[in-house]
Amino acid sequence: MARRYTVAIAGATGVVGTEMLRTLAARNFPVGKLRLLASARSAGKRLRFAGEDIPVEELTADSFAGVEIALFSAGAARSKEFAPAAVKAGAVVVDNSSAFRMDPDVPLVVPEVNPEKVREHKGIVANPNCSTSILAVPLWPLHRAARIVRIVAATYQAASGAGAGAMAELRRQVREIEEGREANVSVLPQQIAFNLFPHVDVFLPNGYTKEEMKLVHETRKIFGDETIRVTATCVRVPILRAHSEAVNIETERKLSAEEARRILAKAPGVCVVDEPERKRYPMPLTASGRDEVLVGRIREDISQPNGLDLFIAGDQLLKGAALNAVQIAELLIKNG
Amino acid sequence: MARRYTVAIAGATGVVGTEMLRTLAARNFPVGKLRLLASARSAGKRLRFAGEDIPVEELTADSFAGVEIALFSAGAARSKEFAPAAVKAGAVVVDNSSAFRMDPDVPLVVPEVNPEKVREHKGIVANPNCSTSILAVPLWPLHRAARIVRIVAATYQAASGAGAGAMAELRRQVREIEEGREANVSVLPQQIAFNLFPHVDVFLPNGYTKEEMKLVHETRKIFGDETIRVTATCVRVPILRAHSEAVNIETERKLSAEEARRILAKAPGVCVVDEPERKRYPMPLTASGRDEVLVGRIREDISQPNGLDLFIAGDQLLKGAALNAVQIAELLIKNG
Repeated sequence: MARRYTVAIAGATGVVGTEMLRTLAARNFPVGKLRLLASARSAGKRLRFAGEDIPVEELTADSFAGVEIALFSAGAARSKEFAPAAVKAGAVVVDNSSAFRMDPDVPLVVPEVNPEKVREHKGIVANPNCSTSILAVPLWPLHRAARIVRIVAATYQAASGAGAGAMAELRRQVREIEEGREANVSVLPQQIAFNLFPHVDVFLPNGYTKEEMKLVHETRKIFGDETIRVTATCVRVPILRAHSEAVNIETERKLSAEEARRILAKAPGVCVVDEPERKRYPMPLTASGRDEVLVGRIREDISQPNGLDLFIAGDQLLKGAALNAVQIAELLIKNG
Repeated sequence: MARRYTVAIAGATGVVGTEMLRTLAARNFPVGKLRLLASARSAGKRLRFAGEDIPVEELTADSFAGVEIALFSAGAARSKEFAPAAVKAGAVVVDNSSAFRMDPDVPLVVPEVNPEKVREHKGIVANPNCSTSILAVPLWPLHRAARIVRIVAATYQAASGAGAGAMAELRRQVREIEEGREANVSVLPQQIAFNLFPHVDVFLPNGYTKEEMKLVHETRKIFGDETIRVTATCVRVPILRAHSEAVNIETERKLSAEEARRILAKAPGVCVVDEPERKRYPMPLTASGRDEVLVGRIREDISQPNGLDLFIAGDQLLKGAALNAVQIAELLIKNG
């Protein structure tokens, strides 16, 4: 019989944790025992997995005895506090927070891009930020083919990126406005219903947000190329769960739109949706619930000789979080 | 007593026509007689202006006797059909459609940028496309100071850009989804509630949309500089009435963020909203109903030496349409 693993999910009741649970089931991950960990507030709840109701336990430093793979999605502070305990207990941690991503001792992995890096882990493998994973999957095959030298990205990020509370806030505000009441702002920094704002994560001294700088630094680390120049504007939009990005790239070698389309058609994790005359292009509505990152509107940039414009959409909760983490866990067990 | 003018609005019952009416009143435009023109379907309706109920008449080639200024916002086909008749009757036409914008005999005017061009009219002055006006107002003073050589823009365009029907569709779909029903798509090409799509206007053979190419060609014509390189991705978002744009520019001379902010602070038609640490940046919610284009998130682009990133938001119905048209009419009467 195939070996089964004791898996823990830290942050199991969050919106990403819930998707991790679903993704483990959907991909038939060889789960032996499953431990669901969350804050004291959620302890005692039960979540369903493989026909069983599993109790949620409080996440503490003692939660990891016997755990072999710990998927963390409980925020950077909790990862910093509890991931070392999990590693000490013998688990390998796949961490979805920003806590360890730029740590030189921690591999930052998108399985379609740099799966070999998983082998270098010292107990922790980091899962990239959602907008980075979604960008990296389609850009990597283009980078391999023609070397990307510069990326200009503008994002259209769903409420899900800020958690279940933000998704609920979008729905609630829409109702409040429909009923002629004032939209109550509590989770996100601004009203999100019928509004958008260039404010995702905190602002840094250089005028960029942390979210924007994650796109810069994480893309370089995942691609293993510190020379790629990246600028980004990250915008929260009134969408529930998939992120979109308008992307302009400059490559060292000229890529025609046709060649880019051919390369992307064969790329893992990518689905080319690029028949605009038939109204087919990436959209959050069609990307939601799908594992692949959708890519379309592929065209040669008329403003520079070696440029391409594209539009991408990917499920923030899947490729942007839970799916990528479970894929990393699959690499871990494949590597033994 | 000051001279008053006979003004016609062709497309008076549309969402831009209605804003033109409001803008004429709000700016105390010296209206003598006002003629409201629309399709036969709307004839007989009455709209209020300056305390009077004015009947809507059917737009025909005979509508313009005695009209001195005709504001057109009834779509390109009607502009092509009826603007010549208005000119023949002695009116000067300010046309909000795309019909004449790229005609070398027709000035394309943003009053904050090239007001002097109004003098060159031969009966028609064109009003730019909404995303172009909103982009041109803040970029022009930067172009004058440091010469913009390239623009990469990603737009976040409101439903209003597709008319009153699209705004109603967004509201209706939100209700349909809230009530657990299917969102009915009729005006826009895709579901707009909780969705977005990179499809504004029709697709062209080069893979860009007509909307995207308007940004390219119109910006060059308004700035009087055919060398500016522009690429854009235009995206419809579930917002009611203001357009936003994430803009990356490259300038010939290096502009610091501080210098750009100083220049923009003195620029006409611009309001700098750039205190991110106090959660102040441009948003459609705060741009709606305002004459100025809001500019913020001004920062030096870390991906190129002479680059700047900015985020702008402007009311699509005001600076993007009705206000710009009325400002052009004001220039016409100022010039006699």
